[in-house]
Amino acid sequence: MASAYTALKEACYQANMELNALGLVIQTFGNVSAADRQQGVFAIKPSGVPYSELRAEDMVVLDFENQVVEGKLRPSSDTRTHSYLYRQWEGIGGIAHTHALYSVAWAQAQRDIPLLGTTHADHLTHDIPCAPPMADSLIEGDYEHNTGIQIRDCFESRKLSPEEVQMVLVGNHGPFCWGKDAAQAVYNSRVLETVAQMAYLTLQINPGADRMKDTLIAKHYNRKHGKDAYYGQ
Amino acid sequence: MASAYTALKEACYQANMELNALGLVIQTFGNVSAADRQQGVFAIKPSGVPYSELRAEDMVVLDFENQVVEGKLRPSSDTRTHSYLYRQWEGIGGIAHTHALYSVAWAQAQRDIPLLGTTHADHLTHDIPCAPPMADSLIEGDYEHNTGIQIRDCFESRKLSPEEVQMVLVGNHGPFCWGKDAAQAVYNSRVLETVAQMAYLTLQINPGADRMKDTLIAKHYNRKHGKDAYYGQ
Amino acid sequence: MASAYTALKEACYQANMELNALGLVIQTFGNVSAADRQQGVFAIKPSGVPYSELRAEDMVVLDFENQVVEGKLRPSSDTRTHSYLYRQWEGIGGIAHTHALYSVAWAQAQRDIPLLGTTHADHLTHDIPCAPPMADSLIEGDYEHNTGIQIRDCFESRKLSPEEVQMVLVGNHGPFCWGKDAAQAVYNSRVLETVAQMAYLTLQINPGADRMKDTLIAKHYNRKHGKDAYYGQ
Amino acid sequence: MASAYTALKEACYQANMELNALGLVIQTFGNVSAADRQQGVFAIKPSGVPYSELRAEDMVVLDFENQVVEGKLRPSSDTRTHSYLYRQWEGIGGIAHTHALYSVAWAQAQRDIPLLGTTHADHLTHDIPCAPPMADSLIEGDYEHNTGIQIRDCFESRKLSPEEVQMVLVGNHGPFCWGKDAAQAVYNSRVLETVAQMAYLTLQINPGADRMKDTLIAKHYNRKHGKDAYYGQ
Repeated sequence: MASAYTALKEACYQANMELNALGLVIQTFGNVSAADRQQGVFAIKPSGVPYSELRAEDMVVLDFENQVVEGKLRPSSDTRTHSYLYRQWEGIGGIAHTHALYSVAWAQAQRDIPLLGTTHADHLTHDIPCAPPMADSLIEGDYEHNTGIQIRDCFESRKLSPEEVQMVLVGNHGPFCWGKDAAQAVYNSRVLETVAQMAYLTLQINPGADRMKDTLIAKHYNRKHGKDAYYGQ
Repeated sequence: MASAYTALKEACYQANMELNALGLVIQTFGNVSAADRQQGVFAIKPSGVPYSELRAEDMVVLDFENQVVEGKLRPSSDTRTHSYLYRQWEGIGGIAHTHALYSVAWAQAQRDIPLLGTTHADHLTHDIPCAPPMADSLIEGDYEHNTGIQIRDCFESRKLSPEEVQMVLVGNHGPFCWGKDAAQAVYNSRVLETVAQMAYLTLQINPGADRMKDTLIAKHYNRKHGKDAYYGQ
Repeated sequence: MASAYTALKEACYQANMELNALGLVIQTFGNVSAADRQQGVFAIKPSGVPYSELRAEDMVVLDFENQVVEGKLRPSSDTRTHSYLYRQWEGIGGIAHTHALYSVAWAQAQRDIPLLGTTHADHLTHDIPCAPPMADSLIEGDYEHNTGIQIRDCFESRKLSPEEVQMVLVGNHGPFCWGKDAAQAVYNSRVLETVAQMAYLTLQINPGADRMKDTLIAKHYNRKHGKDAYYGQ
Repeated sequence: MASAYTALKEACYQANMELNALGLVIQTFGNVSAADRQQGVFAIKPSGVPYSELRAEDMVVLDFENQVVEGKLRPSSDTRTHSYLYRQWEGIGGIAHTHALYSVAWAQAQRDIPLLGTTHADHLTHDIPCAPPMADSLIEGDYEHNTGIQIRDCFESRKLSPEEVQMVLVGNHGPFCWGKDAAQAVYNSRVLETVAQMAYLTLQINPGADRMKDTLIAKHYNRKHGKDAYYGQ
């Protein structure tokens, strides 16, 4: 039976299935959520359900204080990271977390992904940040909530805007991406994985490869995002 | 015609086909067995039969002393490794052996796979052990039986529990994984291959990457496996 | 309704779809154009349209001075690079630009791809050139037009012929390939990606691998391209 | 219309298509031949025909002195390498040449593939030899014929048997594999590519990885090939 959340759950379901179809997750790992700011809720994948068995009606709807408002299954174990970021950053409408290989490898290496080419600069003008692993007290406390704090602190200390930089690596763990909706969070997850693989290969070929020059970064970013953008229709 | 072993052979067949579908084996290499502890038997893939020609009825059923109780084909050449492990470790109900690329590469490198991230810690709290190649006398003796001894000795000398650590690399050879049933042994083979690839890429990016801190290992393992686990339904 | 450009647009569309089917592009990145020298026009992919939604009728037809002669959509943001090369090099009839992984990695590493084997020499007798990133004044000016200048300058300073060397890397950016028609530009994009991956792997195995000897380069190139070529039907 | 060579051409065609389906060739590169020793002929892929257009009736049949006995198309440009090897080594009935990525990379690196694990030893007890590039006089002479000489000389100088070692890398070029028939030559091409990738990854993880010990090499080879072999049905 349809509810006020049917369209939101459908969008969340489609985004989760797309994440799997793109090969960005393995087994039951990874999750996408989709927010409805007007209704004050977000839908998220249930915890540990195989993608092959997932249905739109299984998505769990919660308010931003983590209270379930619709759904019978337990939400993703990472739910409190999602809700924290939705509360902090009002401009975002979707979040995706993957275990994609190259993104995870950079996170495990605890290295920012340096800006080495135009594919990267088409999307953001900064190195992709890798937040350090959390302090023991944060890990042993409200871990998923604190993962959100760790991401926000990383952005604040580096003076990054979540509107421009729509992705982060959490050290030893993996990537979180976001955007105006769940589809864009999935799109950004794929961009991150591609950029992560390109940077990996580049540094294998030339360990001393330089960061791309600022004029070229600005040119490519502004082609797509500046006020005089001329990419797309 | 159905026998007391029909369901066991079907489960064994499905697990072998899944191993192949996941791309973890090439040609006819690799094998999965499934045990029925109540009946005191296990089913295993026949030796050297292409996956495309395999049928559930071709699975060979043996007791744990390697006597064939049902089946016309010769069982996998690795059968005596499987039976040895079933005798030693009464808690396991399935075993899988693959020639997956990254798992084999670590085995050929004779290196344990270090615990570098949460994808690894979601499944076990130890580095994935690589048992050394066997002494010449063991190789020239009852080789497959002795492969089982080598695996058990590795676990005993390192004080590892096969309930927690459900995978091992045999030096110069490749991985063996196990679990409560054949499907879980296949699942673990896939996890191992993913973790092996992530660790490979991580150390290429940062050869000095540190082992993940113990608090984070404990947190992730206990989210899924501890008494207060909250992952899944 | 059919126009004088229907066949050209269809050829352009097919080449763009082939580029995507070969896995040489991600998202909406990458573009192929097809020229009709007699009519003095070329067709090119519209900017930022997903491959899954692309139709032959969406291709944009322009003259070589960048005036649209047919089509309602905005042409690729790289259009002025294409038109510049068509004006400079009258022998070429198709151009392809991709974000293929290994090609981009060499471009980001700012390294020519050395001629290490016969797969490379079957197609050209030179290292694949990597043009340096542009000067700031060129980036901040008519960027896409100037990208064309950068490519031509690279070929002139190295005395390379665009008839023989049908591919280039633009530093920090990625590959451009061309040929007698759009299909050949796509073929060359695939050859480049293969050669880029082979060279990458070769230098990982043996960082001191030598350039192939000149006699072997000449033999393989002339088997396919010389006046006494004996490859093909 | 059926001829005395219909079955041979069909076997040759199937082997060529299998090579392509396994991803061991790109574009039109690569070729497989199949010999019929009783009729004194072999069938081979025509030169430069796309795999998608290939038909069994297009296979070209030649005697071992390179005279065409059936077929309208020009045979593979590598035909004289095949015929030379058939004349030298009477025990072989099929030959395959690929441009598979990892095999080519080792050939371009001019390195033997060291025997690092059981996957390799299941098939041969030697490192996979890489023949050096030919002398200029041989390249400029009857190149394809001389490629055959280069392969035979490599085997003679190293005292290798083509019955045991059914594969070779030609320096700067790529692999040739053979076997009792065309299907086995394709099988060996796939084994070589897998072993080449495993050795690559192993040495990336541990550049000092040792060759596998002789007892383990003998054990694995003899499990499958010795007089007391017990692998398979």
